[in-house]
Amino acid sequence: MSGTLKTGVIGLGFFGSRHARIYADHPAAELVAVCDSDQARAAAVAGETGAQGFDDLHALLALPELEAVSICLPDRLHEEAALAAAAAGKAILLEKPLAHDAATARRIVEAVEKSGVRFMVGHILRFDPRYVQTFYAAAPERLGTPIHIRAKRSGIRATAQRLGASSSILFYMGVHDIDAMQWIARSRISRVYAQKVELLGTGNEDALYAVVNFENGAIGNIDYSWAWPDGLMNGFRSTLEIVGTKSAAYLDCTDQGLYVVEDEGTSGGDTHLWPEINGRIAGDLADELGHFVQATLSGKPYVQHYREALDAIPVLDALAQSAQTGVPAEVVR
Amino acid sequence: MSGTLKTGVIGLGFFGSRHARIYADHPAAELVAVCDSDQARAAAVAGETGAQGFDDLHALLALPELEAVSICLPDRLHEEAALAAAAAGKAILLEKPLAHDAATARRIVEAVEKSGVRFMVGHILRFDPRYVQTFYAAAPERLGTPIHIRAKRSGIRATAQRLGASSSILFYMGVHDIDAMQWIARSRISRVYAQKVELLGTGNEDALYAVVNFENGAIGNIDYSWAWPDGLMNGFRSTLEIVGTKSAAYLDCTDQGLYVVEDEGTSGGDTHLWPEINGRIAGDLADELGHFVQATLSGKPYVQHYREALDAIPVLDALAQSAQTGVPAEVVR
Amino acid sequence: MSGTLKTGVIGLGFFGSRHARIYADHPAAELVAVCDSDQARAAAVAGETGAQGFDDLHALLALPELEAVSICLPDRLHEEAALAAAAAGKAILLEKPLAHDAATARRIVEAVEKSGVRFMVGHILRFDPRYVQTFYAAAPERLGTPIHIRAKRSGIRATAQRLGASSSILFYMGVHDIDAMQWIARSRISRVYAQKVELLGTGNEDALYAVVNFENGAIGNIDYSWAWPDGLMNGFRSTLEIVGTKSAAYLDCTDQGLYVVEDEGTSGGDTHLWPEINGRIAGDLADELGHFVQATLSGKPYVQHYREALDAIPVLDALAQSAQTGVPAEVVR
Amino acid sequence: MSGTLKTGVIGLGFFGSRHARIYADHPAAELVAVCDSDQARAAAVAGETGAQGFDDLHALLALPELEAVSICLPDRLHEEAALAAAAAGKAILLEKPLAHDAATARRIVEAVEKSGVRFMVGHILRFDPRYVQTFYAAAPERLGTPIHIRAKRSGIRATAQRLGASSSILFYMGVHDIDAMQWIARSRISRVYAQKVELLGTGNEDALYAVVNFENGAIGNIDYSWAWPDGLMNGFRSTLEIVGTKSAAYLDCTDQGLYVVEDEGTSGGDTHLWPEINGRIAGDLADELGHFVQATLSGKPYVQHYREALDAIPVLDALAQSAQTGVPAEVVR
Repeated sequence: MSGTLKTGVIGLGFFGSRHARIYADHPAAELVAVCDSDQARAAAVAGETGAQGFDDLHALLALPELEAVSICLPDRLHEEAALAAAAAGKAILLEKPLAHDAATARRIVEAVEKSGVRFMVGHILRFDPRYVQTFYAAAPERLGTPIHIRAKRSGIRATAQRLGASSSILFYMGVHDIDAMQWIARSRISRVYAQKVELLGTGNEDALYAVVNFENGAIGNIDYSWAWPDGLMNGFRSTLEIVGTKSAAYLDCTDQGLYVVEDEGTSGGDTHLWPEINGRIAGDLADELGHFVQATLSGKPYVQHYREALDAIPVLDALAQSAQTGVPAEVVR
Repeated sequence: MSGTLKTGVIGLGFFGSRHARIYADHPAAELVAVCDSDQARAAAVAGETGAQGFDDLHALLALPELEAVSICLPDRLHEEAALAAAAAGKAILLEKPLAHDAATARRIVEAVEKSGVRFMVGHILRFDPRYVQTFYAAAPERLGTPIHIRAKRSGIRATAQRLGASSSILFYMGVHDIDAMQWIARSRISRVYAQKVELLGTGNEDALYAVVNFENGAIGNIDYSWAWPDGLMNGFRSTLEIVGTKSAAYLDCTDQGLYVVEDEGTSGGDTHLWPEINGRIAGDLADELGHFVQATLSGKPYVQHYREALDAIPVLDALAQSAQTGVPAEVVR
Repeated sequence: MSGTLKTGVIGLGFFGSRHARIYADHPAAELVAVCDSDQARAAAVAGETGAQGFDDLHALLALPELEAVSICLPDRLHEEAALAAAAAGKAILLEKPLAHDAATARRIVEAVEKSGVRFMVGHILRFDPRYVQTFYAAAPERLGTPIHIRAKRSGIRATAQRLGASSSILFYMGVHDIDAMQWIARSRISRVYAQKVELLGTGNEDALYAVVNFENGAIGNIDYSWAWPDGLMNGFRSTLEIVGTKSAAYLDCTDQGLYVVEDEGTSGGDTHLWPEINGRIAGDLADELGHFVQATLSGKPYVQHYREALDAIPVLDALAQSAQTGVPAEVVR
Repeated sequence: MSGTLKTGVIGLGFFGSRHARIYADHPAAELVAVCDSDQARAAAVAGETGAQGFDDLHALLALPELEAVSICLPDRLHEEAALAAAAAGKAILLEKPLAHDAATARRIVEAVEKSGVRFMVGHILRFDPRYVQTFYAAAPERLGTPIHIRAKRSGIRATAQRLGASSSILFYMGVHDIDAMQWIARSRISRVYAQKVELLGTGNEDALYAVVNFENGAIGNIDYSWAWPDGLMNGFRSTLEIVGTKSAAYLDCTDQGLYVVEDEGTSGGDTHLWPEINGRIAGDLADELGHFVQATLSGKPYVQHYREALDAIPVLDALAQSAQTGVPAEVVR
C-alpha cells in the first residue's frame, strides 16, 4: 500500500474530536483540516493536531487537496454536510445514524451515488471483535436458520440530558443494534411493535422496548434505555444473542475485564471502544477509521455497503411510529 | 415452634421427587405418603423415603393423619388434584403455574377459599436471594417510580422436547417471570404484545418475545426461549432488571460461580436452585418448602398470597392470545 | 426426626447475633439463652429472640435444660468457653478458627474428647454450594491426582481495622481456605513459605502470600488480603481452583449475580453467605446451623469431623512462622 | 508521518506467521521477506503475502533494502538471530522472552547497543487495554504505595505438549507477568521463592507457584500453569491485581464477552489478543506491531525500553533456581 489519505473532520464534539486525533496518528492518513461551528473548539483541535481550523464546513470542503472527510455532526445536520461533501468530491465517513429519518437517508444516498464519491457509514460494531465474531458464529452453516435474536443497549441518563433534542434514543443508540441485528441475522426487519416511556423529563424518551419480525421468519427483541443512573459500571451495557436451529451465540459487553477499587466503590473502564492507551486512541473506533483510510486509498470495498446502513433507518421510523400509535407498524422500504 | 407437619406429595416427576426428599429431611415435616400414576415410581420414592406409596391421589388424600400436600402434577391436572385436596381439608403447596389458564385458576382459588384450607403456590423465585434482594432494592423509597423492567429466561431445547404438550413455554417458564415482574414492580401488567416462533418442531413454541405495559405506567420486556442448544452452560440463564426514577437494580443468574474444566469443554453447575450437597437438597427449593412447613404449622401468612400468584395467569392468557392474533391484547382480570 | 434442640449462644458480635436469630427461627431448635460480656447487647438480643440473657458464660452453661451452644467469641477466648461447655456436657458449635494456635487447639480437642460431648467447628465453606460442588468435582475418579490448588480471599481494610489485635489475617480469613484446600485436595499441607506486608497501620498484617506443599505432591498457592479499599464490590472476593491429572474445577465468588445501580456507583449484595430474605437469615450460615441442630438431635456424624478442623491450625502456625523468619517452615502436627 | 518500513519476519510458527500477515496489511509497512528453516512453510507464507521466502536468516538479512525484522524463533535461537540482525543494521522486534537466560539476554543487549540499531521486545501486554489501564490506575498519585500485586496465567496442557523442550513455563508464559508486575508496581523483584510440579509428563513443568518481594517493599504472588485440561474456555485465563495504600485495581481476562453455544457445550473466543476480523488480524498484537513500525519510522522511543524487558529475565532465572533448590533465591542483576 502506498500514499496517504488527506482527511478532514466536520464537527468536533465527542466523536469528531476522536476522529481528528485518530487521523492525526494514523500512518496512512494526513489530517488536513477540522471544522466546528464553535470557532474556539475548532482552533483548539487544530492546534493539537496541526490541522487547519475552520468554522464553516464549506470552507473546509473547498480545500482542493482534501480527499476525505468524517462528518460527526448532530443527526439533523447530516444531510447538508453529506451533500456538500459529495458535491465537493470528497470520500465520506458519516458517523451513524445515516440520517434522522428514512426520507433524508434516501436523499443522502441518492446524492452520494450521483456524485460517485466513496461513502461509508460509521457503524462501529462492524469493527468490534465481539460483534464480528458473533456474526461469524451466526453463519448459516454453523447456526442453521435463525430463530430469535435479541439486542440490548443501556446507557446513562446523563447522555439523554446532554443530547436533549439533538438526537433520540432510537437514532443515537438504536441504530447500532438495528444494523447489528439485520447484519447478524442475515435478514431484514419487516414489522415492529414498540412501547416507550418518559418519566425522567430529559426531553427524550427514557426507554423503548420492541418486538420485531424478520423477513426470514425469526423474531427479534429490542431493549433500549438511557434511563440508567449515572453510576452504572462503565457507563453502558450492551448484549446481543442469536439462537438458530443448529447452534447459538451471544455476546455480553458488561464485563470489560477491568476494575478500579476505591474507598467509594468499584468502577470499570473502556477496554474495547476507544480506550486511550500509549498516547493514542486504540480499539474499535481506531480500527473503523483505519479501515476507512486503507479501503479508500486502495479502492477496495468497505466492510459494510452503505445500502446496509440505509436498511436500518426505515426500521427506526417504524419503531417511532409504533411507539407513537401503540399498534404494530410495517417497515416501509 | 412445635410439632411436625405430616406431608404428602402428589406427582413424582422432576419436582415431586425433590419435594419428597426435602420433606423427608426437614426437621419439622414428616413425609407420610407419596403418589404417582406410575406405580413403580411411587414405590421407588416410597422406598427411599419411608413414606407410603400410592398410585391414586384420592387414596393418598384419604389418609386422615395427612395435613398437607405438595401437588407436582402436569399443569392440566392441577385442578382435579387441588380441588380434591381442598375437599379433604389438606394444606396445599401447588407447584407453579397455578393452572393452565385463568378460568381454571379462578376455579381453583374459589374452591380453596370455600374449603378454608391453607394454600400456597410454589413460586421459587420468591425464595431466591437474587430476586428477593432485587425486590428489596426496588422498594419505592429506594427505586423511585419504576420506568422499565425486563425479564429473560432461556432454557434448552431438551426441556421443550421432554415436556411436549404437557406444558408450554408460557406456563412452564413464563409464569416465573410474570410473577416476578409484577411483584418487583409493585404493579400489574395491563396490556401485552407478543410474537412467537416455532422452527424446531418440538411440539412447543421455541421462543416468545413480548412488550407489556404496567398499570403504573412502566413498560416491560419479556424474553422466553427454550430453543437454546443443550450445551448451554448450566442449562439455563435468567436475568431481570428494573430501572426507576431514583435508582436501578439487576440480577444475572448466568454465572453460578462454579466451573468444571475437562478436555471436552467447560461446564458449570447449579449453586442456587436445588443443589444437592452434604446428602440433602439445599437452596431455593428447600427454603420454599421449609417456609411452607413452618408457616403452615405456625399459622402465619405465606410470603406470597395466592391471589398474587393468580394475578400472573391472565397475563399468560393475554400473551398467548396476542402471539396468536398478532395484535396487542388487554389483560382481562 | 423428633424433638427440638435447646440451644444457647455465647458471644453476640457479628456472628453470634446471627447464630441467635437462626436458632430462634429454626423449627428444630429452641433458643434458650444468649450471653455477652456487654450486658446491654445480651439484653437486646434476648429481647428480640425471647431467650434469657446473660453476661457470664458460666451462668448460661449452668442452665440444666440447655443442650447445645454456639461459641462465637474472639479467637483467644475459645479455649475457656469450649472447656467450660464441654465440662457442662453441652454439644458445641465453635465458630472458626478452632483456636488461635495449634497447642490451644489440641487442648480443646482433648478436653472435648474427654468429656464426650458432640463437637463441631463452624467452617461455613463446608456448606457453600460452590465449595461443596468443587469438592465433588475433585473426587479422585473425576479429577485424577491433584497437581496444584490455589485459594484466594480478599477483604476490605475496614475489617482489619475493626478486628485489631483480636484476630489476625491468618486465623480470621486464612483458616477458611486452609481447611478448604486440604479438604478438596484430599491431602494435608506439609511445608509452607509465606511473606507478609504491613503498610496500612491497622495493627494487623495487610496481606500474606504463600506457596505450600501437600503430602500428596501437589503444590498450593495462597493469597490473603484485607488491604482492599472499602469500596470493593460485595466487600469481599474469594476464589479456589484445583487442577488434576484428569480434569479441573474452579469457583469464583466475585459475581454474586446482584447489582444495584445508583448515581454514585454500582454495588452488589450477598446472595450466598447469610442473606436476609423473607424475614430470616438464609444461605450457608443457616444451613450450617441447621446441620448442627439436626445431626446433634439425630446422633449422626457432622459433615466435618473436628479432627479435620484441627488439621488446619498447625498450617496457620507454620505460615505465621515462615512469614516471620523469611524461610520455609515445616508443618508440625 | 511518511514513508514505509521494509520489514522481514524470521521464524514462521504461530507468532511469526501472524507477524507476517500484520506487516503485509499495515499501511506503513512493506513485508519484503520471510524466513523459516522449514522451506515449505517459508514458501507458503511468501506466497500468501507476496514477500520473498528464505530458509536461511542470513540470506534474508543480506537484503539491503530490508530495514527491520521480527524475530519469532524458539527461545534458544534468539541470540544468533538478534546478533546477526544487529550486525546487519536492521531494527529488531524480538518476540518475548528476550532470551532463555539472563546471561544470554545481556549479551543480546550489549550487541544491540554496540550496533546502534533500534530494538524492541514483543511484550504484548504493554498493548492490551486491560493491562495498560491497570498501569494507569496504579500511578502513585492514584494508588499510593503498592502493598501487594498478584498475577496469574493459566494455559492448557496441549501447549506444554506442543512446545516440549523448546521453551518452559517460565520463559513462555511467565515472562509476560514478570514484566507486567514490575511495570505496574513501578518496582523490581528482588527475591523469590518458587515451587514447581511435574505430573503430566509433558516434558515441562505443569505449574509453578511463587511468592516474591519487590524492592519497594511490596509482596507478589505468581501463579503459572499449563496443566489445565484442553477444554478450558478460551484456552487460557489471566488475571492481575494490585492493591496500594490509596486504591486498588484488578483485571480479569476470563470473560472475553463472547459465547458460542452448541449441543456439545459452550465455548468462547479471543476478542483481545489477535482476533481475526474483517479479513485482518486486529487486537493487541496488531497494535504492538503497528507501534513498532510507526516508532521506528518516526524515530520516537518505543513504549517499553528494552532494558525493562531485560529486567524480567534474571527474575525468571531466580524462580527456576528456587524451584530447583527449594529455598528462596535472590535476583542477581
